[in-house]
Amino acid sequence: MTQSVRLSLEEADALVRKVLVACNTAPDNAASVARALVAAEADGQGGHGLSRLPSYALQSRCGKVDGHARPVLERPTPALLRVDAGHGFAFPAFDAVIDALPAMATAAGIAMASIRRSHHFGQAGAHCERLAEKGLVAFVFGNTPKAIAPWGGKAALYGTNPIAFAAPVSAGQPPLVIDLAVSRAARGKIMAAQKAGTPIPEGWALDKTGNPTTDPAAALAGTMVPIGEAKGAALALMVEVMAAAVAGACLAFEASSLLDTEGGPPDLGQTIVAIDPHLASGGVYGERMETLVAEIVAEAGARVPGTRRLESRERAAREGVFIGPALYREIASLTGNTSKT
Amino acid sequence: MTQSVRLSLEEADALVRKVLVACNTAPDNAASVARALVAAEADGQGGHGLSRLPSYALQSRCGKVDGHARPVLERPTPALLRVDAGHGFAFPAFDAVIDALPAMATAAGIAMASIRRSHHFGQAGAHCERLAEKGLVAFVFGNTPKAIAPWGGKAALYGTNPIAFAAPVSAGQPPLVIDLAVSRAARGKIMAAQKAGTPIPEGWALDKTGNPTTDPAAALAGTMVPIGEAKGAALALMVEVMAAAVAGACLAFEASSLLDTEGGPPDLGQTIVAIDPHLASGGVYGERMETLVAEIVAEAGARVPGTRRLESRERAAREGVFIGPALYREIASLTGNTSKT
Repeated sequence: MTQSVRLSLEEADALVRKVLVACNTAPDNAASVARALVAAEADGQGGHGLSRLPSYALQSRCGKVDGHARPVLERPTPALLRVDAGHGFAFPAFDAVIDALPAMATAAGIAMASIRRSHHFGQAGAHCERLAEKGLVAFVFGNTPKAIAPWGGKAALYGTNPIAFAAPVSAGQPPLVIDLAVSRAARGKIMAAQKAGTPIPEGWALDKTGNPTTDPAAALAGTMVPIGEAKGAALALMVEVMAAAVAGACLAFEASSLLDTEGGPPDLGQTIVAIDPHLASGGVYGERMETLVAEIVAEAGARVPGTRRLESRERAAREGVFIGPALYREIASLTGNTSKT
Repeated sequence: MTQSVRLSLEEADALVRKVLVACNTAPDNAASVARALVAAEADGQGGHGLSRLPSYALQSRCGKVDGHARPVLERPTPALLRVDAGHGFAFPAFDAVIDALPAMATAAGIAMASIRRSHHFGQAGAHCERLAEKGLVAFVFGNTPKAIAPWGGKAALYGTNPIAFAAPVSAGQPPLVIDLAVSRAARGKIMAAQKAGTPIPEGWALDKTGNPTTDPAAALAGTMVPIGEAKGAALALMVEVMAAAVAGACLAFEASSLLDTEGGPPDLGQTIVAIDPHLASGGVYGERMETLVAEIVAEAGARVPGTRRLESRERAAREGVFIGPALYREIASLTGNTSKT
């Protein structure tokens, strides 16, 4: 098998569930993870898609991730949710938050959930998008294992720490979705270059002595360059505070890898903020957003963030997703079965 | 007079109040503005300091800013504050928010205030810092008149839209303060270059056809380059949503200038989010922050954001602030008095 394998979204979902259940994950948790990974794959975010499945499955099989964990929710105030993900996958905890938070935000005007003892949370914007589809403006801040140095330093201390944001636009229009890591490039692209034996572009990474490098191995041993120099490093720190300190989770530099079976659970944190924009704006939010989005799309060449993702999603719904042969073999080996599903 | 004028902080404060009161601002509002401008000057943020005073005073004198406005607060829920700044200066509205929000955030865990019909809000981090000194993690999002193009476009649509964030560290340590515009350079630096007749560095700005320029006039007619390319443009849009749409205020492209007396009031918006981190983290926040900050300062060359600002503040408390002769003459002319205070 040297060609990519094409799977419908239903087939991809079934495959992920089957692999995870075979690797000691409870069926409902496997369904939650499958929904998130297949959605990321469909959105063209392969780095948060099925490429994650082998490492997820192996972490569940060895117990680094507790595939049977149930998120435990605590509500210290009507506007605050504290979630213990129990060293399980992040997605069941996010599902619980996305169920509970909208009513809280609508009642209080703003509400927040923090998840601790969590894991890789995938496509950050997708969580915000689900809240925006319920009429809320939402932020997600999450930390990741260390990759970025504090400004002026040379050793990695902060994660690439995504900031995600979504906002409803108007009935019949998809929400505005922003999702960005504070590093110039995705760490996954450097890992892919290392695998392929190709150099990386200058400006992506520094080696461990703080000098620019195009060697992926030196980059992975060094640090990722933040966007906007000191500004990106400051944003990484901001996310670290929101994700780890506010949630009561591990700091990036304390967390174990999300990719292998070494060490204990990563215990990363995520914080989600949801706002009722109609209440906050005294009812003018809808008009304000329509005016803003109309002005963006009226400008030649300009686009609203996230539109490529929606195009990819539509294509995937029609054509399915394509999994490379090596990844497909790796996934299939985890079920002891190499037939298509 | 060709030399800078040195003023103690008390003298600077008295001067600002005197000028504003002479230009039709109520004494208590003038005191609020003076506190903010002098604090910015002391912090080494001259662009938000006394350089603003002449344009503030002229806008108050002509009525573009209502120097007698009183912020009106409305509390639709225990966690939500809506503030109408009444086309006055922003600082009296921020003072009201900083008075009211801490009790709300401590009770609910998270609380939010949005200010509409507002004006230039100065050093964004300073507002967050005041909330962090009360034990809260805080964000401020505010929009500014248009300067950044939507990604892919050529015409300015978003402001340079600062993101500010502060977080308490531990008793006896100053809070962590982050304050950044999403443009690579401050617009004020381009205006200063235009005044001085010097070129600007490449990479700061694009002309109105979307090409890089080092000519400050072409830059001011064009757009500012965002940090991290598409990522910075997305962050500018995120702030636009939070500041204008959520607050019910003008979008950047609708707002009049903050610098001259042309047009109606700018009606900009600001949104402030305050979080009780002790409640949210189940009591572990303090330990988490101490661990994080200790790790940053242990790294050779690394620094916690905002430390230079604190050094400047200490120096200003000892030595006062220095006002250039041209600015000093301009300020003095507004009181009809050229003696020192």
